[in-house]
Amino acid sequence: MTRDDIPTPALLLDLDRFERNVRRMAAHARAAGKNLRPHAKTHRCPEIARRQINEGALGVACAKLGEAEVMARAGVRGLLVTTEVVAPAAIRRLMRLVSAVPDTLVVVDNAENVAELGREAASDGVTVDVLVDIDVGGRRTGMAPGDPALALARAVVAQPALRFRGLQGYAGHCAHVMGWEARREASRGAMAPLMETRTLIEYAGLPVEIVAGGSTGTWDIDVELPGLTELQAGSYCVMDIDYRRIGGRAGATLTEFEMALTVIATVVSVPTADRAMVDGGLKAFSTDKPFPPESVERPGIEYAFAGDEHGRLTITDRSRAPKLGERIEFFPPHCDPTINLYDRIYAMRGDKVEAVWEIAARGRSD
Amino acid sequence: MTRDDIPTPALLLDLDRFERNVRRMAAHARAAGKNLRPHAKTHRCPEIARRQINEGALGVACAKLGEAEVMARAGVRGLLVTTEVVAPAAIRRLMRLVSAVPDTLVVVDNAENVAELGREAASDGVTVDVLVDIDVGGRRTGMAPGDPALALARAVVAQPALRFRGLQGYAGHCAHVMGWEARREASRGAMAPLMETRTLIEYAGLPVEIVAGGSTGTWDIDVELPGLTELQAGSYCVMDIDYRRIGGRAGATLTEFEMALTVIATVVSVPTADRAMVDGGLKAFSTDKPFPPESVERPGIEYAFAGDEHGRLTITDRSRAPKLGERIEFFPPHCDPTINLYDRIYAMRGDKVEAVWEIAARGRSD
Repeated sequence: MTRDDIPTPALLLDLDRFERNVRRMAAHARAAGKNLRPHAKTHRCPEIARRQINEGALGVACAKLGEAEVMARAGVRGLLVTTEVVAPAAIRRLMRLVSAVPDTLVVVDNAENVAELGREAASDGVTVDVLVDIDVGGRRTGMAPGDPALALARAVVAQPALRFRGLQGYAGHCAHVMGWEARREASRGAMAPLMETRTLIEYAGLPVEIVAGGSTGTWDIDVELPGLTELQAGSYCVMDIDYRRIGGRAGATLTEFEMALTVIATVVSVPTADRAMVDGGLKAFSTDKPFPPESVERPGIEYAFAGDEHGRLTITDRSRAPKLGERIEFFPPHCDPTINLYDRIYAMRGDKVEAVWEIAARGRSD
Repeated sequence: MTRDDIPTPALLLDLDRFERNVRRMAAHARAAGKNLRPHAKTHRCPEIARRQINEGALGVACAKLGEAEVMARAGVRGLLVTTEVVAPAAIRRLMRLVSAVPDTLVVVDNAENVAELGREAASDGVTVDVLVDIDVGGRRTGMAPGDPALALARAVVAQPALRFRGLQGYAGHCAHVMGWEARREASRGAMAPLMETRTLIEYAGLPVEIVAGGSTGTWDIDVELPGLTELQAGSYCVMDIDYRRIGGRAGATLTEFEMALTVIATVVSVPTADRAMVDGGLKAFSTDKPFPPESVERPGIEYAFAGDEHGRLTITDRSRAPKLGERIEFFPPHCDPTINLYDRIYAMRGDKVEAVWEIAARGRSD
């Protein structure tokens, strides 16, 4: 099967680029003396998780319990569930997951929730490894740093069926700060309270074995923090326009990781001399960013969304007008929600389909 | 199973509202002497298609061949594929579909494509029913109205294995014009060339049996066109914020169809007195509109996207602050791409789950 045989729109992964990305981050973490637990919310694909682990990752972070359940069933170990598990039925599912995969970690940011997890774990006879989630300024989940976090760590320790393992602090608001120096300053400012909280908790006599955080945007920034033990960057393995444009240490684009993910679409209509339509629209690409998909090595056109199922190509160079049936690849604006639209990803070696991988946790936000 | 047992985030359909919507549109089309072939791209759910047909619809329109294949396999008949089928492998799939479901219609907007469809149909021994797709100003697919459309209709007639059945003209750019009078003016202006093209083709001696078009926004406008034979509105069966806000004949909101679709999410974190986090973000709601999801009968909070898996609720009334574990329903901004994120829809009768329907064509944009 080759590129031309793939029904469109479809999701393609350039294996050469992907493999270099995975190896580069693994080598970087190793050189910095940090563990790596890449975020699987990016890809939701057990085969990608396995390849990250084969290159040295501890396991993968999962945004949700449903995602972690799929990874566990596929044999992936070293799971960290990065969103609090709160609903009673979800807590029961978590206990089943921990019974099957005892090294699973879960985050907490609420004392009642800690008490409930402790009760359920005790009654199920399992021990659950817990990180205290710290809000490092992202204004999502997480306990305030400092004393409130220490109090919650103590609450965890007070539960015989829970094991306090450390802290998580995800500075999502820093991940896309434009320009490396500005991003470094933002990330250092955000992560400082996490580091201070680590010290505070250790002074109180509770060992903090794990401090997890970081993003693709801060991959070469957060390793400067001695108190951080593991990186949970996700997007680096496939990349997207959003991360490319934030800039790297060396210049105006982040070039250390390669754009490995594309959507291939077909020109289904060329109604006028200045317009062509492709078969990929709002259901083929993420739409949460203020910039559109970009064609890959295909000048002379500009993509704009034109409804659920169509993209409108403005033909900017008529000598390169798309032909009916032409297949064009595009970089998606944002990798995670784009991948989540597809059931499979075509793993390409040049023009050949080397494998088709199931995005088995697609849609598993539960 | 009740509302409280559903793992979140999840997609819910209020059956009472849905059934009234389906019946209302069916009665409206009947009273106006029009056929109804609702767009299944909205729901991608064979069970919803069957219910629309049970109430009198001819069949369903499908945005893509993949969607139509799923509907056909589920026993749905009267399919119209509203995007041109161009790639050679897709044309072979179309022939298999037409062999299985001979009343399937497909649109064309290009003479080469007509020739290729004709050749393939002849060599397969099938006859394919064809509509000529007209660009009525939406600047997506479609032939220019008037003589170019007539020429294409003649090209269809010249193919012994194709059968010219009529025209399609979808005025997507009119569907969301704010205010009923302004929308009516826009839609009349857009649809006039379609009506003139019908007349032109009939004067040329080619019977135009079908003229398909219309949207939920113009449901009570396009029926005024004597030349239109069938409506292909889609969103009306479930509705969304986008359609509600365009206004109706009677006032500032479109009230004739009821908001039947919601996403239920759980409060997973209440980190501060002015903020709560729910477990639904970019992967739980469409993000293509410039307005966020709205909570349903739950004052005191405002939703904002906060990443792939989180929504941030700003607590505007502290006396009604969300509790950890509270379940909250939200209206999605745009129904089609929201439904396309989910594998199933919970069909609710009050608080009871009456059925769980598979969104079998989810992801089938191919």
